[in-house]
Amino acid sequence: MRADPSTGSQPGTYVEAEYNRDTAYIEDRITRDGEQWPVEAGRYRLVVARACPWANRAIIVRRLLGLEDAISMGICGPTHDSDSWTFDLDPDGLDPVLRIPRIKDAYLARFPGYPKGITVPAVVDVPSGGVVTNNFPQITLDLSGEWSEHHREGAPELYPEHLRTEIDEVNKRVYTEVNNGVYRCGFAGTQESYETAYERLFTALDWLEERLSSQRYLVGDTITEADVRLFTTLARFDTVYHGHFKCNRQKLSEMPVLWAYARDLFQTPGFGDTTDFVHIKSHYYEVHRDINPTGVVPAGPDLAGWATPHGRESLGGRPFGDGTPPGPPPEGERVPTAHNPHVGPDGLVST
Amino acid sequence: MRADPSTGSQPGTYVEAEYNRDTAYIEDRITRDGEQWPVEAGRYRLVVARACPWANRAIIVRRLLGLEDAISMGICGPTHDSDSWTFDLDPDGLDPVLRIPRIKDAYLARFPGYPKGITVPAVVDVPSGGVVTNNFPQITLDLSGEWSEHHREGAPELYPEHLRTEIDEVNKRVYTEVNNGVYRCGFAGTQESYETAYERLFTALDWLEERLSSQRYLVGDTITEADVRLFTTLARFDTVYHGHFKCNRQKLSEMPVLWAYARDLFQTPGFGDTTDFVHIKSHYYEVHRDINPTGVVPAGPDLAGWATPHGRESLGGRPFGDGTPPGPPPEGERVPTAHNPHVGPDGLVST
Repeated sequence: MRADPSTGSQPGTYVEAEYNRDTAYIEDRITRDGEQWPVEAGRYRLVVARACPWANRAIIVRRLLGLEDAISMGICGPTHDSDSWTFDLDPDGLDPVLRIPRIKDAYLARFPGYPKGITVPAVVDVPSGGVVTNNFPQITLDLSGEWSEHHREGAPELYPEHLRTEIDEVNKRVYTEVNNGVYRCGFAGTQESYETAYERLFTALDWLEERLSSQRYLVGDTITEADVRLFTTLARFDTVYHGHFKCNRQKLSEMPVLWAYARDLFQTPGFGDTTDFVHIKSHYYEVHRDINPTGVVPAGPDLAGWATPHGRESLGGRPFGDGTPPGPPPEGERVPTAHNPHVGPDGLVST
Repeated sequence: MRADPSTGSQPGTYVEAEYNRDTAYIEDRITRDGEQWPVEAGRYRLVVARACPWANRAIIVRRLLGLEDAISMGICGPTHDSDSWTFDLDPDGLDPVLRIPRIKDAYLARFPGYPKGITVPAVVDVPSGGVVTNNFPQITLDLSGEWSEHHREGAPELYPEHLRTEIDEVNKRVYTEVNNGVYRCGFAGTQESYETAYERLFTALDWLEERLSSQRYLVGDTITEADVRLFTTLARFDTVYHGHFKCNRQKLSEMPVLWAYARDLFQTPGFGDTTDFVHIKSHYYEVHRDINPTGVVPAGPDLAGWATPHGRESLGGRPFGDGTPPGPPPEGERVPTAHNPHVGPDGLVST
């Protein structure tokens, strides 16, 4: 998420050889009745990088809820420099709406001299050009809760009232132990801190393997915010975290329950069709020169397995509950087949 | 194999961004009728490091042939410095027979100012203290061909006359494409040279997967020198080459034929019982700081799979032909269970 001006590439700092994520964000919220930042179709732009697991959450949720027309999306390239994520994928290297080359410029438009991490996802107020919030865990919850009047027909309930306590509880453990746990392994500065991180990570993955052996989704019997948050880490596991971050007790593909769960989500509209394996690999391996000095990006792993039958239907569950899956993504937002072999010309994963 | 004084840790050099193994060795041979270096029990010492795949070949062949009493063995630690492999595992850091702290001293005893790579395996003439040869491909062939009068009863024929052409041919391709191919991936200096190396490696592994699908061993129907040479690379594949060297199309454990073949050998006396996973990981991850700057050694992979049934008996073949398997290794030469969970207290792999 972070392009940190002080450390170059790492989204956090080492404290006593252990990696700690910097959690200083702009915590403003866009709310239904907000005075400064009210919900308003067409006013805000979600800036993401497909490589980033925290931004990928917002991409998935926006798509599942059908918010494409209400909130536009700017896409940064995968390999930020030490200064900022940049719009290097766009013609002339400028975001076509914000007309800036770096997301950092939107942080500075809001707070001149902004001293904290330049991260994605960031929601930008288009009229003023300033970042409203980069507080990623709140961004997706607010897309569900505050933007409901703009949801598409048939949008799923990703954060239903009656399941919030359980979702929050699962999210908390998944965040500290898994989402962040892989980084704790990869950026460990000593053997001891690495081994502690590795034990924590695989303890949590064993817990998930057990939990998901008898239920199709993490909470309730439909996809929720909890599944979105776990998915973006699992989608990067074999491709990046297994080798680059030394999370190598097993590959995801060697943990049968989690692997089937991940494939089930991958094959659900909104998940696999937002997964850009080329950007993911490029980001981690090219940016983290401190752990991969050559910047060489591995050619593997073979991605064929993601399309194989998962058999999770036998556990019951209805992915979208009383709702429906989203249709194909808008043309400008499709992940190219060259970046994910399972994405067809309509932008959907074909199985 | 190499502790290269000029480059620190890499057994070779970059030439136009592509890794090339330095092949300048001391090519003297110990032969049955040799004038300077005749076969003579008790005269020579084989110096190895268990971590090194090239030295591991010699450890296996010496053990399969029962040459322990004729040729003693000195064992260097896994993490050589920029100067030399060292006897840091021995009391006082001195090899108990040669009374030197570094194998480099035996090179200098032979050639003062020796300018080339300080490598293992090396065969040392104990009386003079000088290295006779470090020409690893010839060392194992000569253990088979020249030392036959000292072989144990029931020793297998690892390089039988009538199969030599075929063994040589297989060895050549395995050497350039696989044994060396993994290094070519790991030490590639550019994306382009890495990708070429990766294609070459997996093309060869696909060829081996095919070849071994209908025959139990690489050449003929017994273990030969060809199997020894492939095994030491396969034994390091998931543990080191998959992640550290980016050989990650699949793990070995995801290539069903090669994985069964590797387990079959691993469970054959002489192979798995000479495999020290702790030394292997420690060597590659701690020494190659240019590709793993932190020196952190991964805790994975899970090694349990090595002991699972391989089913290769159904292909026929007799591992030792008309001979017999070796008994347990001498007490001082056993790989500790803490370094390989499948080695029992008698030093043999228990399945």
